[in-house]
Amino acid sequence: LVKIKDCSEEELVRRLHDMLGTSMPQQGSEGKVVCGVGDDAAVMETGPDRYLVSSCDMMIEGRHFDLSYTHPRDLGYKALAINLSDMAAMGATARWAMVSLAIPAETTLHFWEDFYRGMLELAREAGVAVVGGDTTSSSTIVVDVFVMGEVFPQQLICRFSASKGDCILVTGELGSSAAGLYWFQEASMRGIMEKSRANPLIQAHLRPVPRYREAAVLRNSRVGAMIDLSDGLAAGLRGICAASNTGARVDYNLLPYRPEAELLAEKAGHSLQDWLLYGGEDYELLFTVPQQYVDSLKQSLEVETGTPAVVIGEVTGPEKGMILINKSGAESVIDPGRCYRHFT
Amino acid sequence: LVKIKDCSEEELVRRLHDMLGTSMPQQGSEGKVVCGVGDDAAVMETGPDRYLVSSCDMMIEGRHFDLSYTHPRDLGYKALAINLSDMAAMGATARWAMVSLAIPAETTLHFWEDFYRGMLELAREAGVAVVGGDTTSSSTIVVDVFVMGEVFPQQLICRFSASKGDCILVTGELGSSAAGLYWFQEASMRGIMEKSRANPLIQAHLRPVPRYREAAVLRNSRVGAMIDLSDGLAAGLRGICAASNTGARVDYNLLPYRPEAELLAEKAGHSLQDWLLYGGEDYELLFTVPQQYVDSLKQSLEVETGTPAVVIGEVTGPEKGMILINKSGAESVIDPGRCYRHFT
Repeated sequence: LVKIKDCSEEELVRRLHDMLGTSMPQQGSEGKVVCGVGDDAAVMETGPDRYLVSSCDMMIEGRHFDLSYTHPRDLGYKALAINLSDMAAMGATARWAMVSLAIPAETTLHFWEDFYRGMLELAREAGVAVVGGDTTSSSTIVVDVFVMGEVFPQQLICRFSASKGDCILVTGELGSSAAGLYWFQEASMRGIMEKSRANPLIQAHLRPVPRYREAAVLRNSRVGAMIDLSDGLAAGLRGICAASNTGARVDYNLLPYRPEAELLAEKAGHSLQDWLLYGGEDYELLFTVPQQYVDSLKQSLEVETGTPAVVIGEVTGPEKGMILINKSGAESVIDPGRCYRHFT
Repeated sequence: LVKIKDCSEEELVRRLHDMLGTSMPQQGSEGKVVCGVGDDAAVMETGPDRYLVSSCDMMIEGRHFDLSYTHPRDLGYKALAINLSDMAAMGATARWAMVSLAIPAETTLHFWEDFYRGMLELAREAGVAVVGGDTTSSSTIVVDVFVMGEVFPQQLICRFSASKGDCILVTGELGSSAAGLYWFQEASMRGIMEKSRANPLIQAHLRPVPRYREAAVLRNSRVGAMIDLSDGLAAGLRGICAASNTGARVDYNLLPYRPEAELLAEKAGHSLQDWLLYGGEDYELLFTVPQQYVDSLKQSLEVETGTPAVVIGEVTGPEKGMILINKSGAESVIDPGRCYRHFT
């Protein structure tokens, strides 16, 4: 018997897409499903010139977070943040959130309240109303946040719209979250780097800032395809390339990273490249833009949000696959299989 | 330190309401939250004359279902059904669903596909599109379904609109699901009743039919308050009475039940009253109607959906509390604390 762990995630998504796709009720223009399984969020037509966008992300104790170094406030914050990142990747504005929370009955009320306090910190900043949810008991903590938002049809950004010759850009820095996780799991025990020094990496891991402000600029720009980097750069590139039927050529020397990540990699004898290419949970936006619009877009983004975006490569034809130019200028194939995998 | 299990569910909902209520972003007419924490679903204003309604319900293996007698198709069906029931309780039309599913990597692909097949059976019937979700691995199965729907403002039915003197009605039969669960957990092992005989109870437990067709009639009728009976009749009554600031007087002799439930109770020496009053997961609708509209409403419901609704009591002033008239005509207090509790 074939088991879930024997299937690639692409295989599961394809099967789900096939099952669900054929089951969509035939509806009129209203209620039409614009994007279903296979993008960062689902998009439904709710009226003329009006799309509803929704996403959900489940976090499980021991798998997605470790309470020995995650404060409940950070957990609440991050559970919402990863969903706001999905909405940003579609160019959508998040408006409402619901929370399903399973916790042991022995949990303190204080922990429970802190979880919501952390979530509400971000909700207020992002203009999102937390409208309800479900609380139940379990032996380990499970958090599932649903976010609903809106986008005008002409502002919607999907994964499938990359064109050959477009530049590939990324916001902020790569690998910080993976480096922060490594600090908690390995480096802190071995005394490799002081906490104060590693703090930017730690914060990137515990409190990733979803790029909703940046999305508000990007949805009014000439962006082709966009995705958020929840599972790492290589997985994000594959997401865009597979949906758009393109290849990609990325220059390692152009990848943005924090000096603390480089220092930690050096001190620990860890590969910086692994963090930048395959490290998950950065929640930066990866997107494509025709070359002639790159400079003005970078400037708008910097002026309006203070966030830098840099060109890291270009979209190629599908026959080229996904290629990395390394430090010495040599080319190699990018393997998204080295990114975070949910079932292995 | 106060723990979650030390708090009543009402206490948790009140605290959540206080935390979330004060955090709602000040928005204009669009995006306004009409109902938040404390009803079957959340209601948001998305445009003039247009409300978006959303609900979510999490099911955890070992707590909410037992795979030794629950087929994955039934699990997928029920995970959607309980959410469609929440939407029905608001008078809303469910349109889209998302699924977060955590399963062990060792699960067979066949199990996973059957789960979705069961969900899609109901989705097609109810005209709901399953638009996506999240799949991740865990040691036990967790299913969280999120449903979005729509309702016109004048058709929205909340818990807080019961009026003194209104009749209290319920659709279908009570206690069947609790009796079905009892059959699996106790009666089947002791050979008390044959499976074929218990089948209506078993089906009520494994495949509850959400009352969305009935809701389509009720939202165009003179219904005051409405709630679904996910946690039992007593909890449903409390939900309406607490929100509407009323009491209720229910006649035990009027409660509808299946003959198989009565027979099983007799044979097993179990209290039928316990199932009818405190048994959860019936997913029937409990609602209030001014007396002069009761007959025409019952007739419309029967003609348009084939589902009976019966008067089981009346709404009283809050000072009377919740009273049960028992078989012999004596009165006792209804204790919702005997219903399903999530943290004890």
